[in-house]
Amino acid sequence: MLTIHGDIRSGNCLKVKWMLDALGCDYQWVAVDIMSGESRTPEFLLLNPFGQVPTVVFEDGRALAQSNAILLHLAEETPWIPSDAWERAKMLEWLFWEQYSHEPYVAVARFQRVYAGKSADEVEPRLMERGYAALARMEAGLAGVGWLAGGQGATLADLALVAYTRVAHEGGFDLAAYPNIRDWIGRVENAFGIQ
Amino acid sequence: MLTIHGDIRSGNCLKVKWMLDALGCDYQWVAVDIMSGESRTPEFLLLNPFGQVPTVVFEDGRALAQSNAILLHLAEETPWIPSDAWERAKMLEWLFWEQYSHEPYVAVARFQRVYAGKSADEVEPRLMERGYAALARMEAGLAGVGWLAGGQGATLADLALVAYTRVAHEGGFDLAAYPNIRDWIGRVENAFGIQ
Repeated sequence: MLTIHGDIRSGNCLKVKWMLDALGCDYQWVAVDIMSGESRTPEFLLLNPFGQVPTVVFEDGRALAQSNAILLHLAEETPWIPSDAWERAKMLEWLFWEQYSHEPYVAVARFQRVYAGKSADEVEPRLMERGYAALARMEAGLAGVGWLAGGQGATLADLALVAYTRVAHEGGFDLAAYPNIRDWIGRVENAFGIQ
Repeated sequence: MLTIHGDIRSGNCLKVKWMLDALGCDYQWVAVDIMSGESRTPEFLLLNPFGQVPTVVFEDGRALAQSNAILLHLAEETPWIPSDAWERAKMLEWLFWEQYSHEPYVAVARFQRVYAGKSADEVEPRLMERGYAALARMEAGLAGVGWLAGGQGATLADLALVAYTRVAHEGGFDLAAYPNIRDWIGRVENAFGIQ
């Protein structure tokens, strides 16, 4: 059975859990508390030298990190990776953008509030500014389309981006002015059976 | 003919150029000076709402951003994307890691020196510290293997990571203590014909 080493509060870890749930795969969850340094112990670094969660360990002992790489590996041959080459390229564009231009702001602002216990005033203004820029980009990208990659169904781009977008309010982001995003969150939760 | 909108000093843009050169594809290069805001003009945002370079525009007018997504699209059906599912997963792991844990430090330190004209003392110590951590991770990952994804030949992981690693010294990083990386840089340059 596959094992996920992860922190249940982390969107990057939840993405992988939701994917396995949607695929109907059995797995074991090993809780790693990143706040107490559990992802940096010698034992964990042996498993994943990147020292990051989620890390997935397959039955044969091989380990894979990077949430979006894990999703792409698990979802091979499923409709969540479009068969159309262009739609697949747009899905990948969103997946890389998520890790570079969304997660470092939307997730990190939430991290400072939820994990580190900072007040709204203590969160770096740059995080809020860039987080809102990322949300504005998504809002525009969802105008007139149901799914981020632009096709007829949900893809990994939707799963990856929903992880931190659905809890953006916990980082202090107000989604009131983002109706496309709010509708899309419900659609993605339905498509993947996210509670 | 395909058009690359890019900045020739940017490793993210050069990756795409090297890929097209290696594939023997013709393309047009449109210089975008990010320092003077050319990637944020209304005209450019119409082309790429992400406001980032590189952006590739195909003959039919469709545009694609995110360097590693562009590489994955261009290299479909080539040996630079391994046919083995596990090797492909490890390639993807490195590609996402590059954008999250390497580029934001190694490339940004270089940006501060080369583009913004800062002295070594003016570069944020955190960038150097995390940049060296990324280089140490690569050095360990290259122990006993020729290529990052662990297979018998170069993959997109090598191309993506070499872009900023080969110019890391311009950001003040000393590769003297990283012999695996130094050997690997030469191998990757040869494999892709990088001058």
